[in-house]
Amino acid sequence: MTAEVDPSGSATSPAGFKAAATYCGIKEAGDGVLDLGVLVSDVRCTAAAVFTKNRLNSAPIDLDRAKLVDGRAQAIILTSGIANSSTGQRGVDDAEQMAAWAAERTGIASADVLVSSTGVIGHFLEMDKLEAGMGSLKPSADGGVAFARSMMTTDTVPKHGSIRFGDYTLGGCAKGSGMIHPNMATMLAYLTTDAPVDAAFLRDELRLAVDLSFNMLSIDGDTSPSDTVVLMANGVAGGETINASANAADEFRAALQVLCTYLAREMTRDAEGATRLITINVTGAAEETEARQLVREISTSYLVKTAVNGADPNWGRIVAVVGRSAVAIVEESVHVDICGTRVFANREPAAFNETVLSDAMRSDEVVIDVHLGAGDAAATGWGCDLTAEYVHINADYHT
Amino acid sequence: MTAEVDPSGSATSPAGFKAAATYCGIKEAGDGVLDLGVLVSDVRCTAAAVFTKNRLNSAPIDLDRAKLVDGRAQAIILTSGIANSSTGQRGVDDAEQMAAWAAERTGIASADVLVSSTGVIGHFLEMDKLEAGMGSLKPSADGGVAFARSMMTTDTVPKHGSIRFGDYTLGGCAKGSGMIHPNMATMLAYLTTDAPVDAAFLRDELRLAVDLSFNMLSIDGDTSPSDTVVLMANGVAGGETINASANAADEFRAALQVLCTYLAREMTRDAEGATRLITINVTGAAEETEARQLVREISTSYLVKTAVNGADPNWGRIVAVVGRSAVAIVEESVHVDICGTRVFANREPAAFNETVLSDAMRSDEVVIDVHLGAGDAAATGWGCDLTAEYVHINADYHT
Repeated sequence: MTAEVDPSGSATSPAGFKAAATYCGIKEAGDGVLDLGVLVSDVRCTAAAVFTKNRLNSAPIDLDRAKLVDGRAQAIILTSGIANSSTGQRGVDDAEQMAAWAAERTGIASADVLVSSTGVIGHFLEMDKLEAGMGSLKPSADGGVAFARSMMTTDTVPKHGSIRFGDYTLGGCAKGSGMIHPNMATMLAYLTTDAPVDAAFLRDELRLAVDLSFNMLSIDGDTSPSDTVVLMANGVAGGETINASANAADEFRAALQVLCTYLAREMTRDAEGATRLITINVTGAAEETEARQLVREISTSYLVKTAVNGADPNWGRIVAVVGRSAVAIVEESVHVDICGTRVFANREPAAFNETVLSDAMRSDEVVIDVHLGAGDAAATGWGCDLTAEYVHINADYHT
Repeated sequence: MTAEVDPSGSATSPAGFKAAATYCGIKEAGDGVLDLGVLVSDVRCTAAAVFTKNRLNSAPIDLDRAKLVDGRAQAIILTSGIANSSTGQRGVDDAEQMAAWAAERTGIASADVLVSSTGVIGHFLEMDKLEAGMGSLKPSADGGVAFARSMMTTDTVPKHGSIRFGDYTLGGCAKGSGMIHPNMATMLAYLTTDAPVDAAFLRDELRLAVDLSFNMLSIDGDTSPSDTVVLMANGVAGGETINASANAADEFRAALQVLCTYLAREMTRDAEGATRLITINVTGAAEETEARQLVREISTSYLVKTAVNGADPNWGRIVAVVGRSAVAIVEESVHVDICGTRVFANREPAAFNETVLSDAMRSDEVVIDVHLGAGDAAATGWGCDLTAEYVHINADYHT
C-alpha cells in the first residue's frame, strides 16, 4: 500500500536537496513575494523532464532540452513574473546567462543547471535585477517551501508535498493557476527523490505519471509555452539503482503517480478564480485515448464550468459535450451522474430532486461520472469552475 | 456588385412568405416575449438545411432531416425556451405533434412542415400550452420580425435582414448567443427567397455559405444539439430556375454569403455578455483547413477572449495559441497585428505603444491578424470577448 502525501513536504524533503528563494524585483513587490529561486542537489542526479508541446516555446525550454540529453542534472534556477518566451535570440542568451550565474555561485557545471521562467510572454528578463538577486540565494535543506513560493504568478498558495516509498522520499512542488491545459506537461513542477533511479526508467515513469496527473487537468484550455516537469533522483539515500526490474520499481511508480496527482489536484484547486474542483470520470469508453479526450472536452466546456459555478445540475450541457465529441458511444447505454446522482440514462432525463442535487454541488469538489457504454476503457481528470473572478484576473493580467 | 444588407428586412421580405409569433407560456413571461412562431410560404419551396453534427441531437433534427430528403418544404414551426433534446421517444412524438398541429392550421402537408425547438436541454415540451398557442398564430407578410423574436433565448435583440439580388429578395433571421461553436450550422437560422432555385444547387450553395459564415463564429466552443440553418426558395418572383449554370447563380451565391455573414456577425455581437466583436484573419497558412482551424482556436481561447475584454494588447496569448496549434508555421515569418498594429514579428516583440493600442482596443470590434508564413491560404472568422456577465448568465441559466 502506498503512503499518503505529506502536504508539508517539498522538493527538499528528500535527502541531499537544498533550495533558496529571494525577491529580486521582477514581480510586483508584496508581502512574502519571491521571484527568484534555486534548487540544488549535493550530488549529480539522474534527471528527466517533460516539456510543453507548444512549438513557440519559451527560451529556457530549448536550453533545458539540450542539457537533459545526457539524463543528468544537478540544479534548477527559476524566475517568475516574466516567461522569457517569444523573446528571440536575446531570450536564449538571457537564459544561458542565468544558468552561468547560478553555476558560478553553486560550483555546479553550467551544463547541469536547468533554467525556468514563468509569467508574461513577450517581455525580456531584467538581467541586472537577476544578477543582484543571485547574491542572496543561500540554499538550505528547509528552503523547499520558499522555492515553491518563488514559482508563483497568479497562484494564491504554494503547492508542494512529499511521499515516502520504501526507504526513500519523493518530494516536489508545482505552480500554475492559469493558461493551464497541459500537453505532455504542466506549467512548472519540480520533483526530487533521494532514491537511486536509472535514467531511462526515470524518464519512462515520469512520462507515465505526467500523463495520468498533470496532463489530465485543464483550467482554461490554453497551453503555456513554458510547461515543464522535472524529476531529479540523487541516490543520496543509497541502495540498489531502481530500474524497471528492481524490487522497488512498483513502489516508486506508485509514489510518483500519487504525488503528481496530489500536485495536479492542488493546482486545480488553486486555479484562477475557481471555487470548486471538478473531478471527471469517464467509463465505458472504447479506447483509453477516447476516455482521456472526453474528460478534457468536458473539463474545458465553458457551459459545464459555469453550471458548476452556479451549482446548477444542468446535465444537458454535459450530454451536449458527449454528443459533439468524436468518442464512440452506444447512445441507449450512455448515463451521467453528478455528485453520485443519476441525471440522464436511457436517452431521457432521470428523475431526481434538483434542489437536493444543487445543494450537493455547493461543495469544494463536484464529481461528474459519464458512462459511454462502448467498451471497458476509463480515464479520470480534473477541471474547475469558471467564475467572474477568472475573467477579472485575466482581463487585467498584463497591463 | 452585391447590394448591402437591409437590417430592417426579415424572412418575410421575399414575396410569398408570411410569419406570425405568439407567447404561449414556455418561456418566462416578460415585455414582448414570444416563444412560438410559424413561417409559411404561399407555395411549396425547394429547401435545403444544414444541421448540427452533435450526435446526441434534439428530437426535431431527426424529423427535419427525414422531411428534407425530397428537397422540399413549405413551413417551419418553432418554439423557444425548451430544446426538446435528450428527451427520448417522447421528444420525437412531441415534435411530430407540433408539425401535425401546424399542418392542420395552415392547410400544408405535415411532411412539408419543419420543426425547431431551442432552449434548455433535457426538459419535455409542455404540449397543452403549445396547442393553445397555435390558435393565435395568424401569419402575415409583416410577421418576419416577430418570428425572429420568437426564436430568442438569451439573445437580447432579434437578428434579421434581407438583401436584393437581380429581381429577387433573400431574407432571413438567426438566433443564438450562447452554446455557439457551430459545426456545419449554427443555433437556428432561417433564410427565404422568392427566387426559383434548383434544389441541388440550393443545397450546395447553403453548405458553402454556412461554412464561410456561421461555421466561422464561436462564442464559447460548445456545439448545440439543435443547430439548424434552413433555406427555402419559393420562386414566387418568377423567372428561370437558378442552378449552377444560370446567369443569376453568381448573384445568388454572393447575396447568400453576404446575408449569412451579416447574420453571423450580428449573432456574435449579441453573444452572451459580450462587449466586443473579435474578427480574426489568418493568412499565410499552408491549407485553408488549417487557417480555419487556427481562427477557431484563437476565437475560443479563454485568455485571448479575456485580454480583449480588458483591452489588453497581451499578444503573447495569441502567439501561445499559434504555438500550441497543429497548423504549419514558418517561425521566423510569423507576425501578429492587433487593430492594425504590428505586435510580434521575427520571433520577437515589435515596438509599439501599449497605451495607444489599448485605447484602440476599447471599441466595438477588435481585429486580430495572424500571418503564418507557410503558404497562401487564408480564413476569416469571428468571436467575442469573455466577460464576467457571461459567467453570471450561464451560472444561472437553468435553475
